[in-house]
Amino acid sequence: MKTKPKTVRISIIGFGNVGGGVAEAVRRKREEIERRHGIDIKIVGIADLKGAIVNENGLSEDAIMKPKTRRKPEDMTSRDVIKEIEHEVMVEATPTNVENGEPGLTHIITALESDRHVVTSNKGPLALEYSRLMELAAKRGKELRFEAAVGGAMPIISLVRENLAGNGIISIKGILNGTCNYILTRMAEEGLPYEHVLKEAQEIGIAESDPSKDVEGIDTAVKLVILANSVFDMNMTYEDVEVTGITDITPDALKLANDAGYMIKLIGEVDRAGGLKVAPRLVPKDDPLNVGGTLNVATIKTDLAGDITVIGKGAGPIEAASAILSDIIRIYS
Amino acid sequence: MKTKPKTVRISIIGFGNVGGGVAEAVRRKREEIERRHGIDIKIVGIADLKGAIVNENGLSEDAIMKPKTRRKPEDMTSRDVIKEIEHEVMVEATPTNVENGEPGLTHIITALESDRHVVTSNKGPLALEYSRLMELAAKRGKELRFEAAVGGAMPIISLVRENLAGNGIISIKGILNGTCNYILTRMAEEGLPYEHVLKEAQEIGIAESDPSKDVEGIDTAVKLVILANSVFDMNMTYEDVEVTGITDITPDALKLANDAGYMIKLIGEVDRAGGLKVAPRLVPKDDPLNVGGTLNVATIKTDLAGDITVIGKGAGPIEAASAILSDIIRIYS
Repeated sequence: MKTKPKTVRISIIGFGNVGGGVAEAVRRKREEIERRHGIDIKIVGIADLKGAIVNENGLSEDAIMKPKTRRKPEDMTSRDVIKEIEHEVMVEATPTNVENGEPGLTHIITALESDRHVVTSNKGPLALEYSRLMELAAKRGKELRFEAAVGGAMPIISLVRENLAGNGIISIKGILNGTCNYILTRMAEEGLPYEHVLKEAQEIGIAESDPSKDVEGIDTAVKLVILANSVFDMNMTYEDVEVTGITDITPDALKLANDAGYMIKLIGEVDRAGGLKVAPRLVPKDDPLNVGGTLNVATIKTDLAGDITVIGKGAGPIEAASAILSDIIRIYS
Repeated sequence: MKTKPKTVRISIIGFGNVGGGVAEAVRRKREEIERRHGIDIKIVGIADLKGAIVNENGLSEDAIMKPKTRRKPEDMTSRDVIKEIEHEVMVEATPTNVENGEPGLTHIITALESDRHVVTSNKGPLALEYSRLMELAAKRGKELRFEAAVGGAMPIISLVRENLAGNGIISIKGILNGTCNYILTRMAEEGLPYEHVLKEAQEIGIAESDPSKDVEGIDTAVKLVILANSVFDMNMTYEDVEVTGITDITPDALKLANDAGYMIKLIGEVDRAGGLKVAPRLVPKDDPLNVGGTLNVATIKTDLAGDITVIGKGAGPIEAASAILSDIIRIYS
């Protein structure tokens, strides 16, 4: 790029694994992004429950990494950072809350009303208030992007909406939760019972101490709602999904399936007729959907291109950060 | 879209399977593309060795489907259509020629010099003159897009360059030829010798009567060169690839591999250090690269997102047309 790079100031709201991953990814990739895409990303504000730190000229690496230097939440809230600090893109990376979408929902609305683009990994607001948020974004002439919310680093939203533009999408089905895939893969490989493998997954950090959102299919259902709304222009919420989790799957069931040439996987499926379903399903061993470990996968059935399958890491801070960075770059190219 | 759709006039140069597929795809998807993307695609010129037909207001379906109404090549050549008929996008769909790239090379240069965007499925010009063509496109401020040239309907070029923007790409490896994949899959499944399966593939139209470009790895190598140049900014030609085909693979080798948990696949691989190689390789059965039948697959190794794999139909007129349509839409969105 010979022209002067465009400065893109971002805030990161929510500075846990994903928010920290974004800061780390910006640190590692800033020069390369400037060279290849002509944009210079500057982090001008960070805020989470522990406090906020801002610098309109760009925060130094030191400042980003030292939470102790932050202003207390009572002096400066996340909303203050979003509204009062001049910047172009608000990265919303607080944890998903499927009860009421907060605090992410308020952050996203505040940002759009303050004329910021929004890039988020937060599934809650999108699963609960998709139409309202997209309408607000359109009204303000801003973008609301969320590649990181579904499939982590696996580029599913943009793949369907952009790369496959021109195709009618008939259905999308896939494995959208790495924890369930890990548990079912290990159970099938080792013939071990659910509780045993869950405990193992918790010990190595693949499952949370309260695993219910993953193993009961809630996380998959929420992602399915986001796919339904963004790809099929539906207006679904979490309540519209028929959900069955993996807690009742036995090693015997997996063995029977295996003997017949199948694996059991927790599959989320949405078709353009409007059915949204999450349930354990038989997947032929030679089907592209049969991926192991913590991988995510989705098969997109289209009217021209046939079936397209994409496989990638569904979780991880730097993987989510990758999707967030790509979203930021795509706003400006 | 409430605003008036933008009219995009296209010519289709080369009206065999792929060119015909584009006309068919435009016929089926024109209204949907206008509604969803705000562009109205009009075919204003078609030309191939048998002749040309043009109408600056858009050719009727009848006119497109009746080759007999065409003007003879001596009255109007493909170059005449490209230069003299006003249009925005030239679709180059003549057959690949890896000797000298013609006639595609001349068509593409003529179109860019006439200030048309170019969308092509033709691998020859890209494998031989990539840098020169991209420089010419940049100089004229026009786009040269070629998603259909690699992996058919599988969106690999745009996936890497756009969806994974922000990532450094370390390597790409995959199965880029459906004919070879079909032959090796059938040989492994049935324990049949190469010649037998090749004959079967020829009978059902999966292999050509002269199969050498496919089975000797030439087609894979040409696609690899296009990936190397477009993704890694290299300046490679077909001569730079180390190529081994599949003609010497025996059922015994496939069985030995199978017993050890592997399949043998013809793999093309390029890494950023500059090595380009096409050869039969052992692929673990549970690797995402292990896909069967005529499918194509590519695994992209990245520095942030980890490994991303994409699987799709690598060939077929309507699949290539899907990629061409997506390219046209992306020029205008």
